[in-house]
Amino acid sequence: MLTKPLSDAANALSALGSQRVWSLLVTVFGDLAQNEDDVIEGPVLSALMADIGIRPEATRVALHRLRNDDWIVSHKKGRTSQHSLTARGRRESAAANPRIYNRLRQSPDKWQLVILESATAQTRKSMEGLGFSPFMPRVYLGASDAKPPQDSVTLIPETVPTWLAAQFEPKDLLQDYAALHHALLGMRQVLAQTDLLSPKETAVLRCLIVHSWRRLVLKHPDLPRTLYSESWRGHDCRVLVSDLLIKLPKPNLGQILLD
Amino acid sequence: MLTKPLSDAANALSALGSQRVWSLLVTVFGDLAQNEDDVIEGPVLSALMADIGIRPEATRVALHRLRNDDWIVSHKKGRTSQHSLTARGRRESAAANPRIYNRLRQSPDKWQLVILESATAQTRKSMEGLGFSPFMPRVYLGASDAKPPQDSVTLIPETVPTWLAAQFEPKDLLQDYAALHHALLGMRQVLAQTDLLSPKETAVLRCLIVHSWRRLVLKHPDLPRTLYSESWRGHDCRVLVSDLLIKLPKPNLGQILLD
Repeated sequence: MLTKPLSDAANALSALGSQRVWSLLVTVFGDLAQNEDDVIEGPVLSALMADIGIRPEATRVALHRLRNDDWIVSHKKGRTSQHSLTARGRRESAAANPRIYNRLRQSPDKWQLVILESATAQTRKSMEGLGFSPFMPRVYLGASDAKPPQDSVTLIPETVPTWLAAQFEPKDLLQDYAALHHALLGMRQVLAQTDLLSPKETAVLRCLIVHSWRRLVLKHPDLPRTLYSESWRGHDCRVLVSDLLIKLPKPNLGQILLD
Repeated sequence: MLTKPLSDAANALSALGSQRVWSLLVTVFGDLAQNEDDVIEGPVLSALMADIGIRPEATRVALHRLRNDDWIVSHKKGRTSQHSLTARGRRESAAANPRIYNRLRQSPDKWQLVILESATAQTRKSMEGLGFSPFMPRVYLGASDAKPPQDSVTLIPETVPTWLAAQFEPKDLLQDYAALHHALLGMRQVLAQTDLLSPKETAVLRCLIVHSWRRLVLKHPDLPRTLYSESWRGHDCRVLVSDLLIKLPKPNLGQILLD
């Protein structure tokens, strides 16, 4: 178990949103065991999940679901279960890596506006896949290097008043990032005053940080900072997460149970 | 009265829309008597209106209305009425001159898209006054040199598929310009085969051409050709009108009754 100031900082992260256990497992495997041949043994996983505050039955149910979803595969080795990502789980985790772990946005700071000829119920999802976020019906904003669908009108901004960001940025994400930013600052402060962390503590904190960041950053395309208002903390969170993960290097899973 | 092929061509122009007599008088005075000290005497006006096909009572009623609107002022000189534009009528006629008489658009061929923070019932009218036409709610298109309202997002087009013009151009104007274009082509053909026109014939044809053009071109801002589809005839009509008016130079009003 984490000691007092650390556990408070960890709880502040866990408290940010209703955490689905299967989603947390996706984070744990994606962060700690993404390489081919990486395996998390049952007792190690149990120890980590317990320290994160998840009951064993909940972990069991979530593992069952992820096996059905072809995300995780489990084998027995002697009396010990060995869990690992499937090829699909590994591929999709790898695809999300840049968006989760890169310290800086990949895309340029310029943006474009795109108008579609028409829209259906699926349009928003497919546009988000291309890196565009909705602004008005049929009107999307994206980084200048995002590739718009064929046959759309594309335009480059010339003058941009501040109300655009205020109208454009999703208010729920604005609040979620503000809360995450606050929790990450708290974590940074506690870590600065903490001497040595055990491999298990390191793993637990990494997973909590990555998880609370991942659930926000993967919700929306990666857009330039200029499209958001001053109080938007999304881009600041990216830098903070990156800094914290440098201070919490990925531990050797074989040492988790030595705590 | 106009002779046969000419009167057919003239009727084709008159038939283009329900012509309000007061509006026709605005055209007649704006075209033939816009200069200071220009006057149209009662008998001259009656002769012209009769040849356009307007009954004397209708002309009288319309004159009355335009006097009430401070557009036309009438004096007696002996037993003859003398009608002229008021200062206001002259000013507003002069303001419309470039849009009616210029052979070429004044504005550049590039355009911009403007997004407003919000819109009210008056927005469309004020935006049209600035040279912008509505495309979507809060989204307007205008020539690149039109001055957008403060605090609007302005964007410059990069790729523009053909559906934009098809969605943007008003279908009623598209049809109206096509009909006007057809009638103007007919008029051009007849004039090419006509020898000499009397001053009155010239005046009547001028007024019919200007009137049918004016009622369309003043309905919407002056926008680049690229914003319209191939079948849009607005810009072609401008060139035709200009060519026809060169062939029908403004006559001396003192000679109208000599026919």
